[in-house]
Amino acid sequence: MTAQSKTDEDAWMIKNLFSKTLSEGKSHDWLRALTREASGRLAGSAASMAAVELTRQIMDTLGFSRVYLQPCTVPHWVRGETEIVRIVNSPFIGSMDLKALSLGNSTGSGPQGLTAEVIEVQSLDTLEKMGSSLLRGKIVFFNRPMDPTQVRTFAAYGGAVDQRGRGPAMAARFGAAGALVRSMTTSLDDVPHTGATNFQAGERQIPALAISTLSAELLSRELKKGKVMVYIRNTSRMLAPKLSYNVIGEIRGSQFPEEIIAVGGHLDSWDVGEGAHDDGAGCVQSIEVLYQLVKAGYKPKRTIRAVMFMNEENGLGGGLAYADSSNARKEKHILALESDAGGFTPRGIGFSAEKEVYETYFKKVNSWAGLLEPYDIKFVNGGGGADIGPLKSQNGLLAGLLPDSQRYFDYHHTATDNFEAVNRRELFLGAAAMASLIYLVDKFGLKE
Amino acid sequence: MTAQSKTDEDAWMIKNLFSKTLSEGKSHDWLRALTREASGRLAGSAASMAAVELTRQIMDTLGFSRVYLQPCTVPHWVRGETEIVRIVNSPFIGSMDLKALSLGNSTGSGPQGLTAEVIEVQSLDTLEKMGSSLLRGKIVFFNRPMDPTQVRTFAAYGGAVDQRGRGPAMAARFGAAGALVRSMTTSLDDVPHTGATNFQAGERQIPALAISTLSAELLSRELKKGKVMVYIRNTSRMLAPKLSYNVIGEIRGSQFPEEIIAVGGHLDSWDVGEGAHDDGAGCVQSIEVLYQLVKAGYKPKRTIRAVMFMNEENGLGGGLAYADSSNARKEKHILALESDAGGFTPRGIGFSAEKEVYETYFKKVNSWAGLLEPYDIKFVNGGGGADIGPLKSQNGLLAGLLPDSQRYFDYHHTATDNFEAVNRRELFLGAAAMASLIYLVDKFGLKE
Repeated sequence: MTAQSKTDEDAWMIKNLFSKTLSEGKSHDWLRALTREASGRLAGSAASMAAVELTRQIMDTLGFSRVYLQPCTVPHWVRGETEIVRIVNSPFIGSMDLKALSLGNSTGSGPQGLTAEVIEVQSLDTLEKMGSSLLRGKIVFFNRPMDPTQVRTFAAYGGAVDQRGRGPAMAARFGAAGALVRSMTTSLDDVPHTGATNFQAGERQIPALAISTLSAELLSRELKKGKVMVYIRNTSRMLAPKLSYNVIGEIRGSQFPEEIIAVGGHLDSWDVGEGAHDDGAGCVQSIEVLYQLVKAGYKPKRTIRAVMFMNEENGLGGGLAYADSSNARKEKHILALESDAGGFTPRGIGFSAEKEVYETYFKKVNSWAGLLEPYDIKFVNGGGGADIGPLKSQNGLLAGLLPDSQRYFDYHHTATDNFEAVNRRELFLGAAAMASLIYLVDKFGLKE
Repeated sequence: MTAQSKTDEDAWMIKNLFSKTLSEGKSHDWLRALTREASGRLAGSAASMAAVELTRQIMDTLGFSRVYLQPCTVPHWVRGETEIVRIVNSPFIGSMDLKALSLGNSTGSGPQGLTAEVIEVQSLDTLEKMGSSLLRGKIVFFNRPMDPTQVRTFAAYGGAVDQRGRGPAMAARFGAAGALVRSMTTSLDDVPHTGATNFQAGERQIPALAISTLSAELLSRELKKGKVMVYIRNTSRMLAPKLSYNVIGEIRGSQFPEEIIAVGGHLDSWDVGEGAHDDGAGCVQSIEVLYQLVKAGYKPKRTIRAVMFMNEENGLGGGLAYADSSNARKEKHILALESDAGGFTPRGIGFSAEKEVYETYFKKVNSWAGLLEPYDIKFVNGGGGADIGPLKSQNGLLAGLLPDSQRYFDYHHTATDNFEAVNRRELFLGAAAMASLIYLVDKFGLKE
């Protein structure tokens, strides 16, 4: 077989994977089931266990070598009653409720609530400079917007999310009574975006909530007029950790079964929405990848796994358990690929690895670039995923699907991240792109 | 000034155009106004005149050199009463209504309706082979789906739309009583897609309607069981032609005012929806292009025009009038660029021209490819637009914006093509891509 005919065979296989997924893909139907039957599936919740069982049952019917659950321990955070964030003293607008959601992992005010003066800051640095004398007893309002001029919205998110992740704990350290964070989105609307915040063990906790961008604009306008007092009432709290599971489907390799190629998404979502783009899409796409390879009659040399990770949103319990178990069995993941950036049209796949091996791997991957060009998929430097991050030490290649990012932060961590927000063809194209890469890595390996 | 610093200046200008559009663009607000105040603006309708006045008023406030209306004659087709397409004889499901919309330009059955047997065909070739003996008195049902395996959905549309455009007239020639056409979409849903069909002057007319893809699947299943009789009642008809207008905003060139760069979309839409993607998006993007260039303080060498063409959907009255007027004034359009493929994330711009000049022009354009690479915009061969097509004989370059095409045919020519279906950032990126190209063509020209 000549080099040319090998390439033709690969081009044909990839065309077949795209065509079959676009015409007979099942991931869109699976996503409908997952979002309907296991909506709001935060780790530890009943819905998350429904999601575990549902994805296991889906994979049980697809002819994989093996489908199994992998135990992991997860935090169990609950939102409690509907949050109240109310401006109580504005002479201009009277009492006014802001649209708010408690931040994940945070402990609420309790049923009696609290009232305090609001102070607006744009950065953690400012906070540091202000110190306890200015912040003690105040509600700190983090209001630096995501930068709309970034064409890649994840860059804008990365430039603002420190306010949500570390802001409340830092405010608490300076004696603040509570924290409000502008929602992480470039949209101007009334939909609050939740997400995890991090208080270290033993740190003082204060109520911490996201408010919608329109609420943030309103609050900021009121602050320009004078002193603003806000009443906060939320009853979120952390319960005892729970046993949960990663769900894994596997096709055993025929030649190098100990070499693993994993493709995954995270099965948990925030509690307020259906978790369609984040990350039901990544889960069902991962199943689709294995399903399409099986359906094409492809017999992999290496073991290929679809992994639904549990607890990406507020702890990474699943990702850590997966890596621990894999390391204990001395597996080697030559490729771990995650889809956790939404079910939008794929524009590329990004790669990372330990420094010593990266160049060799990426060069190999890039030698296949022409095969994905007809589908407008580019291979680029930089990429992976939170759940697969712990696998880096196995010295394989990590990768992340890079879908078009314009709409992602309209839905991210909100009640509007629902099934209808996902386009069938866009979802399918992402699955087909990943199936194509996995086919190539399995067939040719990453050496030389 | 060195070549390097020139490139830096252009990169800076383009970055500025993208940043300002993303952070301060107005086209999304204009689109809200257009879709709300001039919904269903088919040429000849009152709504289309509202759209003319609204876009003129918008442009009047933006500091252009000149804003004016250009008369054109347009057909005036009306849908009439709600269409009925009813299976009347199925023993399995009894009487059943299909979701249907009359095809544009077609004359309905009239108030009494008609009942006839349905015969399904997959292609115009089949029709030709069947001939009058099989087709006389029948309702011909064109049911070849758009090919879902085409990654570029416009290719799939191109491969199926002959059924809508030429199918009914051909069926009429063979004595058919009516024509039903499967909606032009890869989605399986209950939303019928209208669109133009073409009966030549003097040709026998028969009722011609699109039915939803789910209705088409149902009808096809029923036909597999036996004879199916369908009742059609629709009262669409063509009225007398009307006077209408293209709406044009212009920045006069400082050095070569007689050289024109035009960017446009079409102002008319089908009557059943808001015409947000098709083509409100292209209209407001075109205005945004001029607005952003003015706002950036850019003084063009050549005359730059935003053109809202009237009557693209069912006659091209506006496009033809524009070219006639331009030719009469001996203008030369060095670039005419159309956005008529939806307000989705731009992935490229496609080009065409007369053979003798194309290579030179495209080479010049491609020398700027690196400047658009940071925004994932590629320059590719092939592209233009229906409205600007008649300008080809001026020997300039024609171009079409190429947005991501996956969702376009979910909305195309339907009641669901509404403002909410357009994402703000995606719309802005398309406008910024076009502004960037126009800046480069204006500054450097297309020679050598």
